[in-house]
Amino acid sequence: MSRGEAPLFGRVTIIGLGLIGSSLARALRRERLAREIVGCDADGTARRAAGRLKIVDRIVSDAGKAVTGADLIVVAVPQSGYAAVGKAIGGRLKRGAIVTDVGSVKAAAVAALSGRLGADVHLVPGHPIAGTENSGPAAGFADLFAGRWCVLTPRQGVKRQAVAKVREMWQRCGMRVATMDAEHHDRVLAITSHVPHLIAYTIVNTVDDLESHLKAEVIKFAASGFRDFTRVAASNPVMWRDIFLNNRDAVLEMMGRLYEDIALLQKAIRNGDGATLHRVFTRSRRIRRSIVQAKQD
Amino acid sequence: MSRGEAPLFGRVTIIGLGLIGSSLARALRRERLAREIVGCDADGTARRAAGRLKIVDRIVSDAGKAVTGADLIVVAVPQSGYAAVGKAIGGRLKRGAIVTDVGSVKAAAVAALSGRLGADVHLVPGHPIAGTENSGPAAGFADLFAGRWCVLTPRQGVKRQAVAKVREMWQRCGMRVATMDAEHHDRVLAITSHVPHLIAYTIVNTVDDLESHLKAEVIKFAASGFRDFTRVAASNPVMWRDIFLNNRDAVLEMMGRLYEDIALLQKAIRNGDGATLHRVFTRSRRIRRSIVQAKQD
Repeated sequence: MSRGEAPLFGRVTIIGLGLIGSSLARALRRERLAREIVGCDADGTARRAAGRLKIVDRIVSDAGKAVTGADLIVVAVPQSGYAAVGKAIGGRLKRGAIVTDVGSVKAAAVAALSGRLGADVHLVPGHPIAGTENSGPAAGFADLFAGRWCVLTPRQGVKRQAVAKVREMWQRCGMRVATMDAEHHDRVLAITSHVPHLIAYTIVNTVDDLESHLKAEVIKFAASGFRDFTRVAASNPVMWRDIFLNNRDAVLEMMGRLYEDIALLQKAIRNGDGATLHRVFTRSRRIRRSIVQAKQD
Repeated sequence: MSRGEAPLFGRVTIIGLGLIGSSLARALRRERLAREIVGCDADGTARRAAGRLKIVDRIVSDAGKAVTGADLIVVAVPQSGYAAVGKAIGGRLKRGAIVTDVGSVKAAAVAALSGRLGADVHLVPGHPIAGTENSGPAAGFADLFAGRWCVLTPRQGVKRQAVAKVREMWQRCGMRVATMDAEHHDRVLAITSHVPHLIAYTIVNTVDDLESHLKAEVIKFAASGFRDFTRVAASNPVMWRDIFLNNRDAVLEMMGRLYEDIALLQKAIRNGDGATLHRVFTRSRRIRRSIVQAKQD
């Protein structure tokens, strides 16, 4: 904003000061998008870290108190905590307040939060598709969102101005913003993110079960394929547990499709069918090019 | 080497000027490890590219002619080409010549090359564990090997001096070198590299089969997990076809183990068993730390 222009929001309360919440606090401050940033975290270690890092103006342990007078509330806790947050803040929100979140599963986010927030509060669920394998307030940084997509999944009938303000916030944090239906979002993320993570977790654990002489050498010689897997598999265990519990149906559906395709390749390997392998691998390369062209890398 | 010191090899012939062969040519020249580097490729486009790039001293199309007078021959073609190369160069090698290769599956490499090379020729199979998703002479670079592992799998009875010279070559290209049994190497690589690639190829193809509206959005919003998968899945289709055909048994064994572990997680998701998911994901994180500590990232 130019000097003297009013910030986008007066008071913003961020509930959950992990990687995403703490990164948003930093970006809001850098872009001067809030007059005041209130941080809230149930975990004392996280509160102390956020205090040392000076990434928010004020830290409150109780969510119900943290939201007093807030114009925007950002729920940034693992999704298993949504119901408790909804209960704690419900009825304590200012009239006209906007509530958004950053969770990876949108249908469950809507189900956990809507209906609890009180009258004249606008729910605009969101998912900034950004992250690293690190967790906690110290892992965050203001540039985390730069150039990435954020998906908003407002329900029909939500005030357009509320959606526009959340959109503007993420855009000014550097994101490209799209809106879609919550269920559609969850199917897209199941295959682009949730199933790949599930496989990564699995393969890393399979290695952990190897005979010890083999395991030591696997770790020593970890080639590129495996290193990429282990990076993904180092992500926050609580967040990922909640993602799989909350997006169960879409994940299981996509796993079913994946199994069919793996079975085909496995049969080709067993039968020495080089033509099938070559055809499938050539096709994969094409898709990779589409993604590079979509400027996601 | 210091000025005036003799190069490690007189004439080196590299058969196959793809990513690895052309990178080795560049590294040999930069480190002055050969008096003369002869490049050989059956493909005219690759020969012309190598000529334009001036990465070798001389280019020969016929492998049998290319190895004349060579002190070291490096076989760097996809493994389906090994038998033909062995046939072409067999009986044409100088007495005392060393033959090495760069293939990803060592038992099959030994089987394809040994017995064809003639008397007084020393076979030292090797696998520089380095690569990118790009292919061809233009994709190579001298630093490709820096800091990575190279595994040599010489059979018992091979002349120690021949092994020592191949080891020194890779070390002077920046690699750490280990030796192990060929079959053991193939099992280690099956789980660290071959199975991860197989899954990556599969998941990318699963996306390609999605309904078109879903597919377009998957490509648009490709989150980190999926982008990592697609990078891996962009690798050379011929090379990977040959890897799976040549390391069939180890790959199928490791896939079997992986299936068991996936089934456990899938059941936990279906049953809403958050405790199991959290336990497994926490364990993955530990393995990741071992790998980071092993300085492979």
